[in-house]
Amino acid sequence: MPDSALPSPLPPCVILCGPQMGQNIGACARAMKNCGLDDLRLVDPRDGWPNPAANAMAAHAQGIVEAAQVFDTLEAAIADLSYTYATTARARDQVKPVFTARGFAADARTRAVEGQKIGLLFGREREGLWNSEISLSSAMITVPLNPGNTSLNIGQAVLLVGYEWWTAQDQTADQRLETNEALPASQLMLDNFLGRLIEDLDERGFLAVPEKRDRMIRNIRNIFQRGGLTENEVNTLHGIVSFLKGQGGPR
Amino acid sequence: MPDSALPSPLPPCVILCGPQMGQNIGACARAMKNCGLDDLRLVDPRDGWPNPAANAMAAHAQGIVEAAQVFDTLEAAIADLSYTYATTARARDQVKPVFTARGFAADARTRAVEGQKIGLLFGREREGLWNSEISLSSAMITVPLNPGNTSLNIGQAVLLVGYEWWTAQDQTADQRLETNEALPASQLMLDNFLGRLIEDLDERGFLAVPEKRDRMIRNIRNIFQRGGLTENEVNTLHGIVSFLKGQGGPR
Repeated sequence: MPDSALPSPLPPCVILCGPQMGQNIGACARAMKNCGLDDLRLVDPRDGWPNPAANAMAAHAQGIVEAAQVFDTLEAAIADLSYTYATTARARDQVKPVFTARGFAADARTRAVEGQKIGLLFGREREGLWNSEISLSSAMITVPLNPGNTSLNIGQAVLLVGYEWWTAQDQTADQRLETNEALPASQLMLDNFLGRLIEDLDERGFLAVPEKRDRMIRNIRNIFQRGGLTENEVNTLHGIVSFLKGQGGPR
Repeated sequence: MPDSALPSPLPPCVILCGPQMGQNIGACARAMKNCGLDDLRLVDPRDGWPNPAANAMAAHAQGIVEAAQVFDTLEAAIADLSYTYATTARARDQVKPVFTARGFAADARTRAVEGQKIGLLFGREREGLWNSEISLSSAMITVPLNPGNTSLNIGQAVLLVGYEWWTAQDQTADQRLETNEALPASQLMLDNFLGRLIEDLDERGFLAVPEKRDRMIRNIRNIFQRGGLTENEVNTLHGIVSFLKGQGGPR
C-alpha cells in the first residue's frame, strides 16, 4: 500500500459515451467502487438521466450514480482533463499509443502523481467508441484477452481496467516523490488550440476537399493529442501558428 | 506469447458451487471464453440443468454451457484435479496459502506446466463458498480490491481471476521447460486417504466430541490439502497410518 504520508494521486474519471441500458451504467458504478474510482461522467445517455435502472443496479455504489455528471458532448466531458485513454476491443487505424490494461495503469499512475487529471473513455454496448471519439483521446487501451472472444460488456471493461489501476498501487509507490514542474495542458486548452488551427487551415484552403476534411482533422488532432502536452507547449504551438501566419509579434 | 512448439498447459476448470441464477452461469461462461478457459463444472445448481437462462446469457460461449458437467457434490466435481483454489472475498479462518489473483496465475501456471490439473472454486451469489467447501481446496484466492467494496458477482470474479491466468502467459514462458518427475495426487486419491484416516481416527475415539468433530476434520483436511501432495506422498501417508495402527507389513 502507498505511504499514507504522501498525497494519493487522483484516480481516473470514467466517461461513458452514449451509454444505453441504465443497468449497464449501474454495473459500471459498481465496478468503479470495487476499484476505488468515483468520478463518473455520462455523454448523451440514450434513456436520459437520472435513470432508475442505473440506481437499482448500482447497489453499494449508489453514491457514484447520484454524483454522475451528464454532458452533451465528449469534448465538454473531458474539457478539464489532461490525458485520456480510449478503450477499444481491437486496434483502430489511428496514430496513438496503445496500452494493455496493465501498461495503462503504470502510465496513468505516473501521470496522476505528477498532478495530471486522467480520463477513461468507454463506448456504446455494441459499437464501442466512434473514431471521432477516439481521436479526442490521448492514447488507447486494449485489454489482452482470448482472441477468440474479446467482447466485454461495459461493466466488465471498467472492472478490468479499474482493477489494474487499483493493483498498480504497490508498484508505483516509489514514483510518488517524482516531481514534474511543467503543468499539463487541459483538454480545453488543447481544443482551443486545435479549433484555432483548423480555422486557420480552413482559411488557407488546406482542408478544402470536403470528403477528406473530417479525416484530415482527425489525423491532425491525433498528432497533438497523444503528446501529453504541457501548457507551455500549447502556448508555443499558438505562437508557431501565429508566426507562420505572419501575425507574430513581440510576446 | 508462449512458444507454440511447446505444449500449452491445461487451463484451470471453473467449478461453481450451488449456483443460483441461470444468467450468472451464462455470464461465467462468457468470462471463461474471454480468458481461454473452457471446462465448466456445476455443483448442485439450484434451478436444475440444463437451464435456458444460462444459454441465453452465454452468447458466444454457448459451447461452454452445453459442455458443462453437473455434479451432486464438490468432492465428485474435483475428484480428478490435483490442485484447487477457492475464491473468497475475505480471508477465512482456515490454514491455507492465500494468493492474490496475480499470485494465483503464476503459481497455477507453474503447476499446469508440470501437468497438474487445476480447479477454481466459486461460491454462491450471496454467501460465497461454505467453510466445508473451502476446506476441500488446496489454497485460497482473494482478489485485491477497494476494501470499501470487495463484492463481485460470480461472472466478475471469474473474469478477474481468468484474466490474470490469461495475461500470465508471457511471464511463465520460461517455466515451460521445467519438469517435475513426481506425479501429483488427484483429489480422489487424497480424499480416499482422508476418508480412511477419519475412519481410523473415529475408531480410535479421536473425534469423539460431536460438537468439535466437523471442525477437527476440516483442520485435518487442511493440513494435507494445501501441500500439493504427489501420489508417492499419499501412498506414504497410507503407510504411515497403517503402521501407526499396527497394521503395517512388508510393502
